[in-house]
Amino acid sequence: MASPYTLPVQVLIDELGKLPGVGPRSAQRLAFHLVKAEPDVVARLARSIVEMKERVRFCDRCFNLADAELCGICSDTKRDHAVVCVVEDARDVAALERTGGYRGTYHVLLGLMDPLAGRQPENLKMRELVNRIKPEGIEEVIMGTSNNTEGDVTARFLARILRPMGVRITRLASGLPVGGDLEFADEITLGRALDNRQDFGD
Amino acid sequence: MASPYTLPVQVLIDELGKLPGVGPRSAQRLAFHLVKAEPDVVARLARSIVEMKERVRFCDRCFNLADAELCGICSDTKRDHAVVCVVEDARDVAALERTGGYRGTYHVLLGLMDPLAGRQPENLKMRELVNRIKPEGIEEVIMGTSNNTEGDVTARFLARILRPMGVRITRLASGLPVGGDLEFADEITLGRALDNRQDFGD
Repeated sequence: MASPYTLPVQVLIDELGKLPGVGPRSAQRLAFHLVKAEPDVVARLARSIVEMKERVRFCDRCFNLADAELCGICSDTKRDHAVVCVVEDARDVAALERTGGYRGTYHVLLGLMDPLAGRQPENLKMRELVNRIKPEGIEEVIMGTSNNTEGDVTARFLARILRPMGVRITRLASGLPVGGDLEFADEITLGRALDNRQDFGD
Repeated sequence: MASPYTLPVQVLIDELGKLPGVGPRSAQRLAFHLVKAEPDVVARLARSIVEMKERVRFCDRCFNLADAELCGICSDTKRDHAVVCVVEDARDVAALERTGGYRGTYHVLLGLMDPLAGRQPENLKMRELVNRIKPEGIEEVIMGTSNNTEGDVTARFLARILRPMGVRITRLASGLPVGGDLEFADEITLGRALDNRQDFGD
């Protein structure tokens, strides 16, 4: 059956429906919101999508999201560059930054190890972290991977590589709810987990 | 506190968060989906928003959504232009079209009467419907407003204006679930309500 909508609206509904968590009914509702919205509101949304895609890249050093060679944290001389917290992706950086309690820097792995899903260490930014340790004088690596199987496997694997390099290895205190994704932790839990970080054992 | 994200990402999260039903967490999830998506997928989404806004307008005759002076239904000579179904908005047109059982045309009021919310008849496209009756030789007006208080009030008000014009006035059969919005009715219920439409009484 042909679409009951005029083509530009149907195209928009189709495109919105491809977004995660947006079903056909939500896509229709969002499209109608945009049909009725002020033109400059709609233009701002479209422009924010285009500009994000044009300007956002990965930080050359830590693989956080950036709009220049280095992200805002790596280029901040007031941060403690001898302490690096390893996380899965940029959402975790944002979650830790929201605690307001961390003054070190980050290294974003862009994923976690998951042998069953075929995600091996070489698909992650592990080698890049190893290559940072000496030149940047990194003294402590905090394992900030999620408190679940993939996060544990990744942290253990990484710790085994880093230990011979003489760097202190810690992990976020297990104030994190077990089995939970780091990005959903509240600020207080996450801040406490940072303060109570422990030496990483075998 | 400053945003933990690079500016273009934060701007996108803010814009997405203005959409109906999209909270801060969903906005972040959608933004990250777009950060990771292929550039041409993202470009298509942005373009579909811009083109919809540039090209979509209201039909000069029935106020359905259109990409020309007349919508696809008003310009279709195979439709029965003597029968007009009055609905609240273009989503209702889409819902009735999906039944595949209606061959007449539409008139979109762009809202329903709601005296408590200050939506009076003069804010709706009622006068425009009255002005269509004679020139277009309209013989039957089907009240297709939702089966709730606002829909009833609007249909009764409109019927009182149209009755002296000698046009047949019907309403969708009350196979519609009472209190429900028309756009959420399933095709079969809606098709049956069309077939069983009744003369509009006082």
